[in-house]
Amino acid sequence: MKPQTHRISIPVIMEVGPNKLEELDRYILKSGIKKIVLFIGEGIRDLFGDIIFGSLNRNKGLKVLEENECDDNSMEYITSKAFSIPADTEAIVGIGGGKVLDVAKYVAFLRDLPFISVPTSTAHDGFASSGCSLYINGHRTSVHARMPYGIIVDTAIIKKSPERFIYSGLGDIVSKITAVYDWLFEEEKGVTRVDDLAVMIAKKSVNSIVRMPYTDIKEDFFIKELVDSLTMSGIAMEIAGNSSPASGSEHLISHALDKMTLKPQLHGIQVGIASYIMSLVQNHRFERIRKFLSDTGFFSYVKTLKLNPDDYIKAIDMAPDIKPNRMTYIHVPEYREKAKEVIFEDSILKDIFNIK
Amino acid sequence: MKPQTHRISIPVIMEVGPNKLEELDRYILKSGIKKIVLFIGEGIRDLFGDIIFGSLNRNKGLKVLEENECDDNSMEYITSKAFSIPADTEAIVGIGGGKVLDVAKYVAFLRDLPFISVPTSTAHDGFASSGCSLYINGHRTSVHARMPYGIIVDTAIIKKSPERFIYSGLGDIVSKITAVYDWLFEEEKGVTRVDDLAVMIAKKSVNSIVRMPYTDIKEDFFIKELVDSLTMSGIAMEIAGNSSPASGSEHLISHALDKMTLKPQLHGIQVGIASYIMSLVQNHRFERIRKFLSDTGFFSYVKTLKLNPDDYIKAIDMAPDIKPNRMTYIHVPEYREKAKEVIFEDSILKDIFNIK
Amino acid sequence: MKPQTHRISIPVIMEVGPNKLEELDRYILKSGIKKIVLFIGEGIRDLFGDIIFGSLNRNKGLKVLEENECDDNSMEYITSKAFSIPADTEAIVGIGGGKVLDVAKYVAFLRDLPFISVPTSTAHDGFASSGCSLYINGHRTSVHARMPYGIIVDTAIIKKSPERFIYSGLGDIVSKITAVYDWLFEEEKGVTRVDDLAVMIAKKSVNSIVRMPYTDIKEDFFIKELVDSLTMSGIAMEIAGNSSPASGSEHLISHALDKMTLKPQLHGIQVGIASYIMSLVQNHRFERIRKFLSDTGFFSYVKTLKLNPDDYIKAIDMAPDIKPNRMTYIHVPEYREKAKEVIFEDSILKDIFNIK
Amino acid sequence: MKPQTHRISIPVIMEVGPNKLEELDRYILKSGIKKIVLFIGEGIRDLFGDIIFGSLNRNKGLKVLEENECDDNSMEYITSKAFSIPADTEAIVGIGGGKVLDVAKYVAFLRDLPFISVPTSTAHDGFASSGCSLYINGHRTSVHARMPYGIIVDTAIIKKSPERFIYSGLGDIVSKITAVYDWLFEEEKGVTRVDDLAVMIAKKSVNSIVRMPYTDIKEDFFIKELVDSLTMSGIAMEIAGNSSPASGSEHLISHALDKMTLKPQLHGIQVGIASYIMSLVQNHRFERIRKFLSDTGFFSYVKTLKLNPDDYIKAIDMAPDIKPNRMTYIHVPEYREKAKEVIFEDSILKDIFNIK
Repeated sequence: MKPQTHRISIPVIMEVGPNKLEELDRYILKSGIKKIVLFIGEGIRDLFGDIIFGSLNRNKGLKVLEENECDDNSMEYITSKAFSIPADTEAIVGIGGGKVLDVAKYVAFLRDLPFISVPTSTAHDGFASSGCSLYINGHRTSVHARMPYGIIVDTAIIKKSPERFIYSGLGDIVSKITAVYDWLFEEEKGVTRVDDLAVMIAKKSVNSIVRMPYTDIKEDFFIKELVDSLTMSGIAMEIAGNSSPASGSEHLISHALDKMTLKPQLHGIQVGIASYIMSLVQNHRFERIRKFLSDTGFFSYVKTLKLNPDDYIKAIDMAPDIKPNRMTYIHVPEYREKAKEVIFEDSILKDIFNIK
Repeated sequence: MKPQTHRISIPVIMEVGPNKLEELDRYILKSGIKKIVLFIGEGIRDLFGDIIFGSLNRNKGLKVLEENECDDNSMEYITSKAFSIPADTEAIVGIGGGKVLDVAKYVAFLRDLPFISVPTSTAHDGFASSGCSLYINGHRTSVHARMPYGIIVDTAIIKKSPERFIYSGLGDIVSKITAVYDWLFEEEKGVTRVDDLAVMIAKKSVNSIVRMPYTDIKEDFFIKELVDSLTMSGIAMEIAGNSSPASGSEHLISHALDKMTLKPQLHGIQVGIASYIMSLVQNHRFERIRKFLSDTGFFSYVKTLKLNPDDYIKAIDMAPDIKPNRMTYIHVPEYREKAKEVIFEDSILKDIFNIK
Repeated sequence: MKPQTHRISIPVIMEVGPNKLEELDRYILKSGIKKIVLFIGEGIRDLFGDIIFGSLNRNKGLKVLEENECDDNSMEYITSKAFSIPADTEAIVGIGGGKVLDVAKYVAFLRDLPFISVPTSTAHDGFASSGCSLYINGHRTSVHARMPYGIIVDTAIIKKSPERFIYSGLGDIVSKITAVYDWLFEEEKGVTRVDDLAVMIAKKSVNSIVRMPYTDIKEDFFIKELVDSLTMSGIAMEIAGNSSPASGSEHLISHALDKMTLKPQLHGIQVGIASYIMSLVQNHRFERIRKFLSDTGFFSYVKTLKLNPDDYIKAIDMAPDIKPNRMTYIHVPEYREKAKEVIFEDSILKDIFNIK
Repeated sequence: MKPQTHRISIPVIMEVGPNKLEELDRYILKSGIKKIVLFIGEGIRDLFGDIIFGSLNRNKGLKVLEENECDDNSMEYITSKAFSIPADTEAIVGIGGGKVLDVAKYVAFLRDLPFISVPTSTAHDGFASSGCSLYINGHRTSVHARMPYGIIVDTAIIKKSPERFIYSGLGDIVSKITAVYDWLFEEEKGVTRVDDLAVMIAKKSVNSIVRMPYTDIKEDFFIKELVDSLTMSGIAMEIAGNSSPASGSEHLISHALDKMTLKPQLHGIQVGIASYIMSLVQNHRFERIRKFLSDTGFFSYVKTLKLNPDDYIKAIDMAPDIKPNRMTYIHVPEYREKAKEVIFEDSILKDIFNIK
């Protein structure tokens, strides 16, 4: 058998910029889609309903067949919904935060329909990836769906979202530094083979933003760069065929925190902190992460959360069991010890965890 | 018909770093390829023969069925060669500059074989794109082939290549700024539709390098970033299905120079100058281009070439006819006038063209 | 945008012949799969357990990670199962009748794993298609999954299966004649566009078997031809992107019977009868269907079932509402009347429905 | 790496029936193509020019940018032509016999344009396959291009073509019997791996026509079946990724005849005779081939050609060297001897070679 060039799926619609929500109808129609089913997150209607429906209902060519306000990401809800939408649905559009996007993405996957992803915040790279986090058999579970057919991001909306969502996006994007390093470590140990192009794209996604000049993280250009970077992170995973280029030891720590804490922080907040910890452990580019998370105000924000260092200690110990088949730095006992030590030694970490 | 997610081909092998040439055999073998036909550029054997053949001949599992030293990019040579290589050839490997890579790429395309691209200089993005420049019917002609199956770049080799090749690569990469702007201009005029993801990837390719801190353009990290950026430029074209995200008015000026001057400069040198000119015409990000081409030493190098401003004046007039179906800034008479004016007005341009 | 050649997915493993079950391990291993999760139908272990496990457990290279005997095709069971199988599963293997194959096919789809289809009877083309019939929201629902990665059919096993399963397969395969004719009728009415290649493949699938000389429907060659024909029917649907080339008015009648009768007959039995009825209505190739279903003994078998003609009368009236968006012959009132009439007029139908 | 479902390219346009040539414009336009370059075979204009241009020129939406009457299948002509057609060409249409179709197919391949294949005779499966036979470096050479985007066959035209072309098509289609058997033989010897689905499709292609009832080989239905069968043969090769399912020892004998005789017969005539010879050697389904080639009048026609048995004797000896990497029956010395013997022993062969 002849070696074949690797083929991947990429989004067809990709619109990122101010006031894109006002032209939702136009972007959907120009790709030939006329009948959609809508999933919008709780509260989205109150916040942006005028803009969204002003656009979707103005054009006679576009029909919203059904509209679901949704806060339920259980597999029961999703399968029940997926197989009761109208037979002539041509695409699923999800508008809102990570939860409703994941629901809409999975409904689209189950029905083999294009999914158009319209995030109203950019707390992580889920709006641009093939993965979802759903509630199955009583557990939050990472499941595979399909790369969105369209991604439409209104940077004017993102700017208005609470700052913690932007910080969360920043935390998620820097995590590619430690994730890629973990992946290369696994290859060295003979556990897996990295995809070199996925590595390159993942690195570009983070490097282009951490090296970008900006004066305010709410600048249009900065937010656009963040969205683009998170999208490239999604593409890196698509190339790899798995989440490794975007998710390493720092994600395992965050998953562990999700399991054990009653009220976990936003995904990217946890991941950003854990990524800084792991960069110290890996002894790799920690200055870059430190500078970026300091300059953007991420660490200052984190300090206000009054996090408990014990949670992170426990999470570090639990992390390897989240994905026992991997072999990241956190799977190595001595590196786990080091991870726990740096919390009490690094001045930034001591500060955010309020350790005297 | 249901809208389908867009699918593109991407490289399977992607190795960029110091001393990669010494492990050529290993990278080829690990993708299951055992019998190759080699095309190497003139003079490459003298420069790097020991490294190349030291690697290729050391492993009994890998066979070089045929080895062609080549300086002929005529279609006659290529078709004759393509259909006389051994029947059991499993891949074509090209090692050298743009010319031999294009020959090898097209032989592989004609024989439906994987192509492994091993550039020894990075004068432009051809090592990572599906296009070739061949000599057909007495003319240099841009033809379509296929995205390389593998890209292997030894940054230690690139560092040893004459500086003009690195400058050429830098000139080619900044040209994405004007190329993308031209493409968006064409969309505005209703002449074409841009692919938004291709735009995003093309922008990331240039932004990640122009924003990168460096002390010397021959640093490993800087060269790796350049190679990665040129690769992303190739991927942007693959996504677009044409060269528009990577080639606009500045490339047309360079093509015109190739046609009219007896001894054209390196592609990226011409393109870099033309890109700076056009950024002034477009009134878009010219400061960024100016700063990058000044800081890296590109403009200082260009000054040593004693270029004739009249050539550029003529080339600007010829440029629209190179691709009459397009509608870039250079296709608009008033912008052509402005392009000619800035040569005599901008202080940098006056300096490099030695205009008093 | 350039028109693109249409690309479809086809099975990689395709083994049809006597005693193939004994070499199950070999066929799976040669495609590089080493760890499987098994779904087997109820009663299959008693019938063929020795052969199946004799093969699967003999080779140390192949591991059955989990084994599920299953009679539940509810979405609840499937999603719960899909996300609790071992993380290192490389493929899902389904062995048994239509129900267990559909469950296994959908588990594989949800987990993005290759599905290997091992039917122990050939009652319809489901073993070789991307579709499944599952129990969702309290209804039998046709859902889309993915073309099997492998199809392994042991004709020696099929021969031992009760004759009604072979008759069902024969009924399903002749139905392509009326299904294709309905599809062309819809195109004529402007309701849809047929895919000409799908039409051709669907026709070849039925023509190659109805024209085949045989002495006994349990001959190896005849059964192999039946399996191949049903596989081609699956491929025709894959080409079409929907079930139209394989499922027309006759399938709608059968779906209606499934809804209204307490104990429906096998799918292909109902479909075969309905296909003969519709061929008379369409006035197209009814002689061919009549001859094939008479010669093979299908009609004689059907007569033993003592079917109630009133069920078919009602089903004909219900049929259009099963898929209100289609426009087959059965969607036209006058053809529905004719369909009901022929039951009382055609001598074969009178005979099987025991109408004096 | 996860095993991936195998993906192949298939034609989008597939029109086979009487008077299809009169609607050429409609079939092309409905796939969105508006500007074509035409290649027509020598003499085609005289025979069918009125019909062809009556259709192509009637609709203002369709433009024939260039029209080439061509009898030159040299690579020089093709490359020169390919890169001088208008830049806005959207598709290449070839009308005529095998030679012009191959030229047009390769021009389309070189320019990455869709190719629409409009055969005016069906002498072999080339109109529906990705392969071409071109004249390169002074030799007829089999080269790889791409599966046609469209296939349009006017059976009314085919009926008017000289009978030898239909006989040639029949000879080519029965050859799949010996070709597939050779391929399975090679797998047994460990030389290659067959693709089971390609085997199935190749078998279906021949079985559906050899089992078809007909009264005259010029019947519309029979000719349509022939076209469909040759198309499926093309698809079988596409699935296999090479020509093995459609071309075995019998094709090697024909290729040898092409090389040594001054005026070779039509491809399918030679292949049909060689296939019958090899079926006797393989001791496999020779009765079926004998019956089909006798009943259709193939053998009677062949007798009128007064072929020289010595040519076939020599060709049998040369055959293995045509493709030394294969291992068909003809590559085995004892089977070559047997092949030569049967010419003098089999009554049919004695008759057509006029051996007393």
